[in-house]
Order: sequence, then structure tokens, then C-alpha cells
Amino acid sequence: MPLDSSVSHAFSDAERAAVYRAIHTRRDVRGQFLPDPVSDEVLARLIHAAHHAPSVGFMQPWNFLVVRSPEVKHRVHAAFAQAHAEAATMFPDDERRQRYSALKLEGIREAPVGLCITCDRERTGPVVLGRTHMKTMDLYSSVCAVQNLWLAARAEGIGVGWVSIFQPEALQAALDIPERIVPIAYLCIGHVSHFHDRPELEKSGWLPRLPAEELVYFDRWGQGDGQHPLACQLAALRS
Amino acid sequence: MPLDSSVSHAFSDAERAAVYRAIHTRRDVRGQFLPDPVSDEVLARLIHAAHHAPSVGFMQPWNFLVVRSPEVKHRVHAAFAQAHAEAATMFPDDERRQRYSALKLEGIREAPVGLCITCDRERTGPVVLGRTHMKTMDLYSSVCAVQNLWLAARAEGIGVGWVSIFQPEALQAALDIPERIVPIAYLCIGHVSHFHDRPELEKSGWLPRLPAEELVYFDRWGQGDGQHPLACQLAALRS
Repeated sequence: MPLDSSVSHAFSDAERAAVYRAIHTRRDVRGQFLPDPVSDEVLARLIHAAHHAPSVGFMQPWNFLVVRSPEVKHRVHAAFAQAHAEAATMFPDDERRQRYSALKLEGIREAPVGLCITCDRERTGPVVLGRTHMKTMDLYSSVCAVQNLWLAARAEGIGVGWVSIFQPEALQAALDIPERIVPIAYLCIGHVSHFHDRPELEKSGWLPRLPAEELVYFDRWGQGDGQHPLACQLAALRS
Repeated sequence: MPLDSSVSHAFSDAERAAVYRAIHTRRDVRGQFLPDPVSDEVLARLIHAAHHAPSVGFMQPWNFLVVRSPEVKHRVHAAFAQAHAEAATMFPDDERRQRYSALKLEGIREAPVGLCITCDRERTGPVVLGRTHMKTMDLYSSVCAVQNLWLAARAEGIGVGWVSIFQPEALQAALDIPERIVPIAYLCIGHVSHFHDRPELEKSGWLPRLPAEELVYFDRWGQGDGQHPLACQLAALRS
């Protein structure tokens, strides 16, 4: 068991830079998966990282459903395909609808591993420390597990894509997940040919990156200050 | 603009270890805050990291409300205190109720910076790529921003505590957040005397760390396999 002092010693500049590198080069991967298998050793490190996410009341509400069966991947893909076709009809203007349909949005069948991260809302009983007033906190814990895994994967050179275009019930049916268990994320995981330099939706002009300094308020909602040193620092980081 | 090749080059062993170190030594800080100010330079790097979280449809639904005013902190603390008193009455047995009341669960007034990360569900209109079928995806994007910030903060030697014991409406009132904006997390941020070696709720015996290998299923819900190489790797990482 490490002592507090060893846990607490400062990160070196190089260590700090590595953490920022993982954060800033993490990508949602859809089309760059290679067929090379992901070893159980690497996958275990990724799941171990996810399992060390923060969880409300130390509830650890997650499960990790590992999909390697081509048959199961095809069932998951069919659930995606149905929702994707429905989604295309929802965009009000033609141009947007066509651009949406042309996007590559998932690698369910190509990625060697699928991973569904779930939330068991009843894991530790009805009263959960920290969830008494914000009822969604357990769902958020499982999301933190997703993000931990995603950053660890980036450091391993492994790509991750989060597919959310499913009717939740269809995804549950494809994976035999009971009704009471919430599927949080279906992740496509695998080695990749490369990582894009910027998010694909940004590169393709779907939406622009917002200037972070415009999203900052001070002490009360709506109180921005473009001249505040924090805003200036954020603007400087942007370029 | 970096080329794909530079974004894609592999992390060194030391870089990879640094990312895992941030993941495994990140703590929810309640009682170790020091009064030293957090510089705008560091805070900007943290918010920049949060702003580079994944977001559904590249929606970037978050805002960052920075609280440094003691008066506003007191309003936030009053909202916490009311919910905390209510929460204590919810635990069914006496022993649990007393243990809950004795726990230090927040550093709202001590931490030099408070930061509320929110979700604007209407930011890019009613139809959002990737949110058509899983309506909570935008909330999850803001949670990913929280986790990015938390890990970046650990690498900076900065402690973060997520306070969730609020009536959301009371937190909104304390910060003048409009009804349509969802407060996702109120974070206490500051330099710390030390980081605990393990999560405080684990150390205090509130709940144990679950064995990760027992949370893994293969190809369908409920299909565990304690002898699978992945399960064995996870058990080995535990010790």
C-alpha cells in the first residue's frame, strides 16, 4: 500500500505534458480500425483504468460487457443501422440530412473489440451517499469510467469510438441487458492506422470549435469578461 | 496545425505511465485544501482540457462558471447544508446515519476556486447528431469535461472535489443559472496538503472496492468467466 507521501509527490513537467497530450489527441474513432487483435493484457489495463473512475458514494455502478463475437457485433450493428436511418429523417433541411447520411459514424463490425459500459442504479441500495438530491449522479459515474478508459486507450495507442445512435432498448436486446440496467456507452476499440489531427466533425465543417473564453462566466451565470486574465490565457491557448 | 502523423506517434512507456498515474492517484478532495490561490494560468489549462472533452455531435454544451467570491461560496454552501441535513435523514439505519453525518464531504468555502460545469441542452438546436436516440448524451458530454479537468488537475498537483449534495434548483439559484441550463457538477478546486492513498469512502470502510474481474461479462449480459485471461489479468492488476 503506497503512503500518502508517495501518492502526493508532484508530477514532473514531462508527466504533466503526457497527461495533456492524451487529453488533446484523444479522438472519437470511426474509420481507422485495424484488424489486429487487442490483447487481454492491454484490455485489462483499460478496464482497470475505467474501474478507478470516481463514483458517487463509491458505488462503482458499472459493468463491462466485452464483445468479440462477430454474431453479436452484427446484432449491435443492426440496432445502429435502424436508429441511423431514423436519425437521418430528423434533420430539417436537405443539405444537413445528406451530409449526415454520408458521415462514417461507427466501426462496430471492424473494431476487434466492442465494450458496453453500463450503470446498475440499484447496486448499493436505494439511498446512495451523494445521489440523494442529484439523481443522475450514478449515470455520471459510469460516464467518468468511459472517459478514463478513453484516455488510457489513447496512451496505449488504441482507438475508441463511442456509438450512441441506438434505441437503448434495441442495444439492450442485442446484448441481453436487463431493463433495469442502463447502457451508458457502446465503445468500439482497436488499434488504428492513425489518429486525426482534429475531431472529424470539426474537420468536416459540421460545427466549429467554440472559443473557450466565451464559455466562461465569473461568480454568476451570464457574467463574462473577455478582458479577464483567465479569458486572455484561454484565448492564448487556442492558438 | 499538427499533421496526423505527429498526432499519431506512439506514447513512450514513461508517457503512458504518467497517464495511468493521473488516473490511479486522482482523488475526490474534501478536506485537504490550502488557501494558496490557483493562478489563472493553471486554471486556463484545466478549462482548456475540459473544453477538449468529447461531445455528442461536437455540440460542446458546457459552460464554466468560476466562483471566487466568498459571498457566492457562502450561498452555495448554504444550499449544500440544507440538502446535507435532508440527506442524513434518508439513511434507514441509525449507525449509517451517524457515520454519514460525521463525514467531511465538501470544501466549498475553503477551496480558493469553485467551478460549476453546466450543460446547455439547446446549444445547437433540437436535432443533435448522436443524441437523436439517447437523449442524455449531451449531459454525458459535460461529464466527460469534468473528468478531463479532474485528471489534468491531478497532473498539476491541484485537488478537485465534486459536490453533488444540492437540490439542483438551489444550486441554480445560488449561481443565477437559468432553469433551462443543467448544472452537472460543482467542483471545489485548489492546492492541497496531500492526496489520500485511496478513496476516502474506501479507507473509512463505507464501501469496499469491488473486484473488477467480477464486473466483466463476455458477449452477453451475465456471462462471466473468472478463468478467462482477461479476468486473470484484472485480478493480477488488483494486487
